[in-house]
Amino acid sequence: MDGWAWCHEGYDPREEGLREVLCTVGNGYLASRGSAPEGSADGIHYPGTYAAGIYNRRTSEVADTRIDNECLVNLPNWLLLTFRMDTGPWFDIESVDLLDYRQELDLRHATLHRRMRFRDERGRVTAVTQRRFVHMRLQHVCVLETTFAAENWSGRLEVRSALDGNVRNTLVERYRRLASDHLHAVRTAEVSADSVLLEVQTNQSHVRVAMAARTTARGAARLDLHRRLVEREGWIGHDIAVDLGTDRAVTFEKVVTVFTSRDAAGLEPAEQAIRWLHRARDLGSLLATHVTAWRHLWERFSFGAGDNADETELLRIVRLHLLHLIQTVSLNSVDLDVGVPARGLHGEAYRGHVLWDELFVLPILNLRTPAVSRGLLLYRYRRLPEAREAALAAGYAGAMYPWQSGSDGREESQRLHLNPASGRWIPDPTHLQRHAGIAIGYNVWQYYQTTDDREFLTHYGAEMLLEIARFWGSIASYDPSRDRYVIKGVMGPDEFHSGYPGANDGGIDNNAYTNVMAVWILLRAKDALDALSSQTRAELLDTLQISADELGRWDDITRKMFIPFHDDGVISQFEGYHELTELDWNAYRERHGNIRRLDRILEAEGDNVNRYKASKQADVLMLFYLLSADELRDLLERLRYRLEPKMIPRTVDYYLARTSHGSTLSAVVHSWVLTRAHREQGVELFFRALRADVVNIEAGTTPEGIHLAAMAGSVDLLQRCFAGIETRGGQLLLNPYWPESLQALNFTIRYREHVLTVHLTGRTVQIASDAGKQQPIQVSCRDKTADLSPGSRLTFAF
Amino acid sequence: MDGWAWCHEGYDPREEGLREVLCTVGNGYLASRGSAPEGSADGIHYPGTYAAGIYNRRTSEVADTRIDNECLVNLPNWLLLTFRMDTGPWFDIESVDLLDYRQELDLRHATLHRRMRFRDERGRVTAVTQRRFVHMRLQHVCVLETTFAAENWSGRLEVRSALDGNVRNTLVERYRRLASDHLHAVRTAEVSADSVLLEVQTNQSHVRVAMAARTTARGAARLDLHRRLVEREGWIGHDIAVDLGTDRAVTFEKVVTVFTSRDAAGLEPAEQAIRWLHRARDLGSLLATHVTAWRHLWERFSFGAGDNADETELLRIVRLHLLHLIQTVSLNSVDLDVGVPARGLHGEAYRGHVLWDELFVLPILNLRTPAVSRGLLLYRYRRLPEAREAALAAGYAGAMYPWQSGSDGREESQRLHLNPASGRWIPDPTHLQRHAGIAIGYNVWQYYQTTDDREFLTHYGAEMLLEIARFWGSIASYDPSRDRYVIKGVMGPDEFHSGYPGANDGGIDNNAYTNVMAVWILLRAKDALDALSSQTRAELLDTLQISADELGRWDDITRKMFIPFHDDGVISQFEGYHELTELDWNAYRERHGNIRRLDRILEAEGDNVNRYKASKQADVLMLFYLLSADELRDLLERLRYRLEPKMIPRTVDYYLARTSHGSTLSAVVHSWVLTRAHREQGVELFFRALRADVVNIEAGTTPEGIHLAAMAGSVDLLQRCFAGIETRGGQLLLNPYWPESLQALNFTIRYREHVLTVHLTGRTVQIASDAGKQQPIQVSCRDKTADLSPGSRLTFAF
Repeated sequence: MDGWAWCHEGYDPREEGLREVLCTVGNGYLASRGSAPEGSADGIHYPGTYAAGIYNRRTSEVADTRIDNECLVNLPNWLLLTFRMDTGPWFDIESVDLLDYRQELDLRHATLHRRMRFRDERGRVTAVTQRRFVHMRLQHVCVLETTFAAENWSGRLEVRSALDGNVRNTLVERYRRLASDHLHAVRTAEVSADSVLLEVQTNQSHVRVAMAARTTARGAARLDLHRRLVEREGWIGHDIAVDLGTDRAVTFEKVVTVFTSRDAAGLEPAEQAIRWLHRARDLGSLLATHVTAWRHLWERFSFGAGDNADETELLRIVRLHLLHLIQTVSLNSVDLDVGVPARGLHGEAYRGHVLWDELFVLPILNLRTPAVSRGLLLYRYRRLPEAREAALAAGYAGAMYPWQSGSDGREESQRLHLNPASGRWIPDPTHLQRHAGIAIGYNVWQYYQTTDDREFLTHYGAEMLLEIARFWGSIASYDPSRDRYVIKGVMGPDEFHSGYPGANDGGIDNNAYTNVMAVWILLRAKDALDALSSQTRAELLDTLQISADELGRWDDITRKMFIPFHDDGVISQFEGYHELTELDWNAYRERHGNIRRLDRILEAEGDNVNRYKASKQADVLMLFYLLSADELRDLLERLRYRLEPKMIPRTVDYYLARTSHGSTLSAVVHSWVLTRAHREQGVELFFRALRADVVNIEAGTTPEGIHLAAMAGSVDLLQRCFAGIETRGGQLLLNPYWPESLQALNFTIRYREHVLTVHLTGRTVQIASDAGKQQPIQVSCRDKTADLSPGSRLTFAF
Repeated sequence: MDGWAWCHEGYDPREEGLREVLCTVGNGYLASRGSAPEGSADGIHYPGTYAAGIYNRRTSEVADTRIDNECLVNLPNWLLLTFRMDTGPWFDIESVDLLDYRQELDLRHATLHRRMRFRDERGRVTAVTQRRFVHMRLQHVCVLETTFAAENWSGRLEVRSALDGNVRNTLVERYRRLASDHLHAVRTAEVSADSVLLEVQTNQSHVRVAMAARTTARGAARLDLHRRLVEREGWIGHDIAVDLGTDRAVTFEKVVTVFTSRDAAGLEPAEQAIRWLHRARDLGSLLATHVTAWRHLWERFSFGAGDNADETELLRIVRLHLLHLIQTVSLNSVDLDVGVPARGLHGEAYRGHVLWDELFVLPILNLRTPAVSRGLLLYRYRRLPEAREAALAAGYAGAMYPWQSGSDGREESQRLHLNPASGRWIPDPTHLQRHAGIAIGYNVWQYYQTTDDREFLTHYGAEMLLEIARFWGSIASYDPSRDRYVIKGVMGPDEFHSGYPGANDGGIDNNAYTNVMAVWILLRAKDALDALSSQTRAELLDTLQISADELGRWDDITRKMFIPFHDDGVISQFEGYHELTELDWNAYRERHGNIRRLDRILEAEGDNVNRYKASKQADVLMLFYLLSADELRDLLERLRYRLEPKMIPRTVDYYLARTSHGSTLSAVVHSWVLTRAHREQGVELFFRALRADVVNIEAGTTPEGIHLAAMAGSVDLLQRCFAGIETRGGQLLLNPYWPESLQALNFTIRYREHVLTVHLTGRTVQIASDAGKQQPIQVSCRDKTADLSPGSRLTFAF
């Protein structure tokens, strides 16, 4: 197996799960899950088609009362294609003898292939092969090709090719008791002898979705086609009969177009679907342009390594992750007003909500498809007014971005959640994770540093940074007793600590991650202002009514923010953390095996995780993930704290010993920080992060949708952690922490209009720019700095 | 009257027309025409509210068959506010004695003020004053304030404040017989004691529009309010009764929010309208932020002149034009996927269609609000796939942009049009104006030159330029007999020439404007490619499948395009133009007076304008408008043609003598070219262009909507023609043709992040940059070039 295919052979397609979600094909506009032989009228049926424009509808205000609102909407099934011999029953996988089943995701071409051979009760052996893709350039077009070969019989084959709007959201088991019908039929129509139209509308948000499908057959010399329209409420298709024999395989080509009323450049999706179906050519032409688009993507997202088997496997997983990333957020989603849903367009978990996952996704995109990053940042910019209102309602100034949100940008975090271990609904104050806005501000700045896109900074980025900074400037209060600023009543990234023991849900004070990053945001807001011309700056400050006094206060905070430390110099997760009880980790591991969700275990026992020195995921350690040691040291020194170099490994060890890894992101962050402390342990965790979704490491959540941030983050480890790429102060910095066990690595990035090829070994890093008229860039490796001009290369030894 | 107010005093408000359209208030998202006392139940009623998101719905394929489709949709009337004394009849302007009526558009604050005094049949004298604005920063919010003062009576006043969805498109008289109901009611609801909600949906495109209104009263010490909900199909409001006396004026404040289902960041307009109505503060606060937003706009769009009365009047008109421009395309429309409708959001003429007007609008915006230009270019980028299909369908390659289009970017030009002079429907081949794409390519390049926005060029601009270039490369055919490329069967900007005599509708060959500009586009496509890094260029060329051969052909065309000239060296409008008959202009002028629409006059006489050397508008002369003499000379020399300097005035004179000025744009272009040939005549035409809409120079079309391109173009004359500003080759060029009759002029522009103040007199031009860290720019004035650094200034004498 080379590094470009993802195969599942000989498994039982009747078991849903992991393999299907990993075999999603999509294009950023539309994603369609892999599945068992879908459309078998009585067989297994997981349409799993989602459109990016309508995935993140607002869902619920309180978990138990309004949970039946719309969420990620399962679109009509465009894949429906079933068949029967003569006038027998439609194909039912349960009633045949399955001889062979193979599914392969072709990573290079982003096509999904399936092959099935079966013997029916009359001994007839038939081979069915399919391939499908969602077109990467013609974003509204998808194609399914199905070939039937009779191995030992001849006779009539009838194929049913249809569009089915009677779909429900049923992927996540625990949501199934909730309302899951999100579509109602608007109309069905036969467009021509080989084409049909289905139009549906989402129930709550009134988004119209139209699909048009054309099914044609080709094959043997004499192709005798009989077609019949079949239609019912929300369902339309053609039955097509052909003669099949051992000498002639017959291929059915189903080309489908999908439009929604949220699309730009057109208001009537049905009309658009029909028009573009007429324009869509045959599979051969469509595949050629699809493959070209993917070739370009793989050039942008190129990763190459040494050629031992381990590294081939590594690249195969890296490409799988990248494929899934690109299928969720791509050049096709730039203009769609969509964010980064936690589970991509791959499943219904989190109901399509947007959290902070873009913090782990943008580092990959900034350096490859910056236009996509820009689109994702504009998604947040459009929700700045809502974030301002949220801050105002909470008594603060500036913009307070939500922890979980849907289409209108309001806070959608559950206020109660169910502990399956105890059956109890317990209060959920996770909305106190005010640090969501830090992730957005961080991304704004990194995008700007990487691209030097001053148009963005001037019109959007600076305003976002200022409003986020302002929020931190207002939530921070001055404590005269210590001559320090403090931030009280929040939650850090670690969701095990929602409050102090005895006052469980009020948040905690002075979360180190939050306080340090709030200072970082205030500093970057100042940098952004300094980058603007004086008139532009003056206009922005006047619009936002930011006074010199307020800027002065911000400056003061960047010098006097309180950061908690333990007595031995380890950064404390939050103020008072050191007074919590040590957990007997071994005892819990022995008793429960998997203690990722220690919070639920403790709650079921009548205890509370808030009492313990126990973290679900990286919290303090996020600081080492987002900031280089230099940058963190400088920031702390400005605050008159001193971070001894030796304190970094000590802090890492301290928290690693006290973390349950209840989040897929944790492995990414921990791999990162370990690489700096204990190189080879970092690599071990890297492989763990890499495989999280591949082996369904979280015991069951992957089939509900991949973990997009962990997928992106694991690839990011290669470039930003191991190769040590940083974009800061107008420079491209390289600070490799290259694990010996990895041989060579090549990858491609874009930085300020340069297409750069990075070649890394254990001892050297070489970086080459493509030719052109770009401005030279500055590259630094450790303490050496050099200019890199278009068409030239630099080599650094380290 | 200072230069900041636009007043109409003592006129009869019962006459609709010019004054109302000039008194539109809007914010780029929403525009609302000034009108007579609207909402008087039996009185005059021109709601005239348009939302940018839904103005450009597709209308018709053929004028006489599908003309009743949706077009620019008149939104519900949010201004409805009428009143009565006691239980008498509702106010009817026809049945009172109007003592006084004054309407003032406050240009500085973009607020509309009206004052009316009347005496009713019982001798009661009442003064009603209103002000209103559509908020420039909170784009969904508009406010109407109405104050009632009883001058000689006391008693009960009842006010009816409502939202009315029963509106029709009736503004353009000749469209009135067509279907004009575009909305149907979805729901009405009382939101609270003082607030109501109306939701409607457009009939064809299913766009939902929700309005929520809150009406509150303030005034005398004791305010005794009685409210009653009034509701009917598509109509909802409150009747509010108060006691009025001579000692107490009472003021009603109506705050309205408007959302549509096309808005980003939210899918349910009704919910959004209610939520944001709750968040909207009182008039005082809203006005303050509105005025701040306009202060910033006026700083960006600052024009100052000498202080004689003429120049004050000039500035007043300039500001009126700018106000209308900003009300149509503003920072609020950047994200709306809208183009530049020919009549702005001011009227229903052209049914909201988009033509080439942005060619005249972007030069103003590029230099002041480049983000708006970028948004308008992305509108075209989103319609690139449709333009590609149009080219393909017509047998060409690349992108063929439509002459008239609606929301989905298809060609919507009429195929037949009515000649009111003859009553005949005649074929209309204006879609042959393939030069529409030239305007778009020109704008792409100018935007890039002005902003240096490489993010835009890389992701959008280069692709657009290449595809437009490719169209010209494919429509041009090689004529071996002359070793030249020719372009046949098109129309130039002059709509009087749709074909040759005897073959009237097939277009003409080798239109000089088209051929020259096609070469210009091919050259700029090459420049755009050269500006990209080699990898980015390679990817783009591969995606578009542009081969080296094709690029070679383009280069060949830029050296061998045929351009027609008359024997005396005057550029010929098209091949064969010189063989046409000379028209007896004096005879026609004597016979008909206004011969702007000479085509209609001749058709009614059984003749055809195609036979004559007669132009409706500038065609060849557009070349001098778009290209400086240097640039045109260089381009022609590349083609081995020679343009003697003396040929410019001769060409200008030749066509000026043969033009009927049947387009408002003509005066702009002619003023431009005359300034170079005969300075003071240019100024005369400048004043004519400036006043086109103000005095309704086109005999009747202004009340159907302002001429946005002419408004912008007339202001552009000041900066690009008189001051001679050009952005070319990475430089800011100044080449003033400053008319003696104008004294001094100051204005502000933005160029590559510099905010520049330009001060111009008859002898010198001074240009100053604001402080900051911007890269220095290069400025040239005639043959002197200098660097301009942030915070410094340059002075050139000429």
